[in-house]
Amino acid sequence: MNPSALPLAQRLQNVETSAIRELFKLLGKPGIISFAGGFPDSALFDVDGIRAASAAALESEPGAALQYGATEGYNPLREQIVSFMAHKGVQALSPEQLIVTTGSQQALDLIGKTLIDPGDTVIVEGPTFLATIQCFRLYGANVITVPVDGDGARTDRLEQLVAQHQPKFVYLIPTFGNPSGALMSLERRRAALEMAVRHRTLVVEDDPYGDLYFGDAPPPSLLALSSEVAGSRDWLVHCGSLSKVLSPGLRVGWMVGPAELLGKATMCKQFSDAHTSTFAQATAAHYLKAGRMPATLDHVRKVYAERARALCAALRRELGDAIDFVEPQGGLFVWARLTGARGQLADGNVLARQAIEQGVAFVPGSPFFATDPDPATLRLSFATADLPKIEEGAARLKRAFGA
Amino acid sequence: MNPSALPLAQRLQNVETSAIRELFKLLGKPGIISFAGGFPDSALFDVDGIRAASAAALESEPGAALQYGATEGYNPLREQIVSFMAHKGVQALSPEQLIVTTGSQQALDLIGKTLIDPGDTVIVEGPTFLATIQCFRLYGANVITVPVDGDGARTDRLEQLVAQHQPKFVYLIPTFGNPSGALMSLERRRAALEMAVRHRTLVVEDDPYGDLYFGDAPPPSLLALSSEVAGSRDWLVHCGSLSKVLSPGLRVGWMVGPAELLGKATMCKQFSDAHTSTFAQATAAHYLKAGRMPATLDHVRKVYAERARALCAALRRELGDAIDFVEPQGGLFVWARLTGARGQLADGNVLARQAIEQGVAFVPGSPFFATDPDPATLRLSFATADLPKIEEGAARLKRAFGA
Repeated sequence: MNPSALPLAQRLQNVETSAIRELFKLLGKPGIISFAGGFPDSALFDVDGIRAASAAALESEPGAALQYGATEGYNPLREQIVSFMAHKGVQALSPEQLIVTTGSQQALDLIGKTLIDPGDTVIVEGPTFLATIQCFRLYGANVITVPVDGDGARTDRLEQLVAQHQPKFVYLIPTFGNPSGALMSLERRRAALEMAVRHRTLVVEDDPYGDLYFGDAPPPSLLALSSEVAGSRDWLVHCGSLSKVLSPGLRVGWMVGPAELLGKATMCKQFSDAHTSTFAQATAAHYLKAGRMPATLDHVRKVYAERARALCAALRRELGDAIDFVEPQGGLFVWARLTGARGQLADGNVLARQAIEQGVAFVPGSPFFATDPDPATLRLSFATADLPKIEEGAARLKRAFGA
Repeated sequence: MNPSALPLAQRLQNVETSAIRELFKLLGKPGIISFAGGFPDSALFDVDGIRAASAAALESEPGAALQYGATEGYNPLREQIVSFMAHKGVQALSPEQLIVTTGSQQALDLIGKTLIDPGDTVIVEGPTFLATIQCFRLYGANVITVPVDGDGARTDRLEQLVAQHQPKFVYLIPTFGNPSGALMSLERRRAALEMAVRHRTLVVEDDPYGDLYFGDAPPPSLLALSSEVAGSRDWLVHCGSLSKVLSPGLRVGWMVGPAELLGKATMCKQFSDAHTSTFAQATAAHYLKAGRMPATLDHVRKVYAERARALCAALRRELGDAIDFVEPQGGLFVWARLTGARGQLADGNVLARQAIEQGVAFVPGSPFFATDPDPATLRLSFATADLPKIEEGAARLKRAFGA
């Protein structure tokens, strides 16, 4: 058939996905060491715990676990999520104040569907999660960026941008963001909430990585902090997920937000996928109820912390002043910048191609910027490589500079 | 907070969900007998088979079952679906020609996202699945209807409407449709495919009920028949689901379509939910591979056939000439029309309220019409009531006429 014969919607023209897709096609090359992924290590999954939870769900409530369920989510899971969040400092949250989503990706989609009209402005961090940018652009958003530094999004610039552009909402990943790994300071978190109230502007907090800290716990999430900033809960949406700490394959995320917004998002979800898999939801509920999460978190934090330290040390040793980065305090990523020192390669896109030839992969940073890409940047994930692979991968990266 | 302060998207104004929602809120009344549901009977779920499949998935491939997966779907499941469809006469289908969706509801959403621009016309059957109408309207579609009679959608009228309105696509549930229960004749199926080719117009076949036949197998699906109508595969989208025959809670559906459309739908799905639960997909794949589906289908067909016969007999006995319907040959629904004979009540909306008071529920037919609702219609599901409940429910319905 003639491809142009298909009457595709205009919105598809707003999205370009080829950059990273093309790179990922090369990852099948045998023997490649990958720092490119954005996912947790499947070797760390608590398979026994999930097996037991799934069996318990089918044993105790087979009907509920296999039947259609409420669009808002499976109530026992909503209760367990509230309890999970309470341990992270989130107070005064009831199960009715959250809906379960099919991964937090669906929360982003529902936010877009509920709020974005074509031409609306949305502010995101530069850099931010690539699929967020594309998700919002599919709804016709004009996505602009607020810069990020070592203390997270620059809230001074953010307030100026909000005043100037009156965006539909601001999207932030304050804790160990993808790809920046940055940790927003407590002061800026407070400033972001105050800004939301002052400008009556929704702030969306995406928090898939907040549990993955390596030393001290990070500052409270915007949601936890909202109880200290009067009126801020009315302007705050919070997205959470079990994907990074338990299993992405369950596709269990959630969204907290103002009641009216949640109601509209629920209506949209009804026509998106009716509800999130009750089988996965019941399994997740039994897992959380069984009390295995604290030990699981202890374990993954320890492993990722070790790998993060190893990757940072290896990068410093092998690449020296050719690369600059802040050692992450959590999450899955090292976000780095090629310095070009002593005339060395300073283009992440070029280095990515040369690295593949040397048998190591990472993702160049440019696609993570909705505007003004910095071509010197790169994202390296330490999550799925063990220590010997990290050492060898860094050595290959060094060779890639000379290729 | 002032509700009007939320900057909601315009598209939300296209959708109205209150009619059925309000009714469903009343279903919690104790002792009510419900013919209102649109779901299978959870007592018929093959819990042992699903438990074994889930355990096998976690045993043999825990990484794949719990990790992120390809947006297109889990390959072993795609292969099993191809094999499942081959037994239903679908030839020349490869796993790459389908994507797995989070229930077939998501297939509808992806079709809308991929194809519908605000103001586009889409043709559906009158009546059709309510969530389809709302799903397409959320993308701004102008939804118009082609009438349905005992042989399914009137393809003569359909061709006129296509020529007149040049719709983005036509959406049909040719086999035991929700709510009509109608079975499109072989002749009209062929006519629909020929029309699609002649007018270069996409036809979407939604087929969640085709496996639930009570006597002889229905005519081949449009997808199966497409191999006999030259060029029709280029204009055909087919949505399938395990929800009605295995378990809705898995949220496993699929979509077959022209390669370009599938590619675009996959891109949209990436930003909708990344992928369908790999845990659910691996469970479904192991279930299908274990060969339990034929026995499961035999069982559910037998039970639903018995209930359908019982409901039809009870309706005739209790309501006589007050109601008119065609006895369904499959599916989950009896679609009926109040005749108003001898001055009896002929408004399904009024009868629905009076029925609730008598302790029996059904769904009035009006909301299933995108245009020109027929207020005399009603949908009764026989799927979840056992034979004594069916008898008692029909007796209560009789009392509702006099209430």
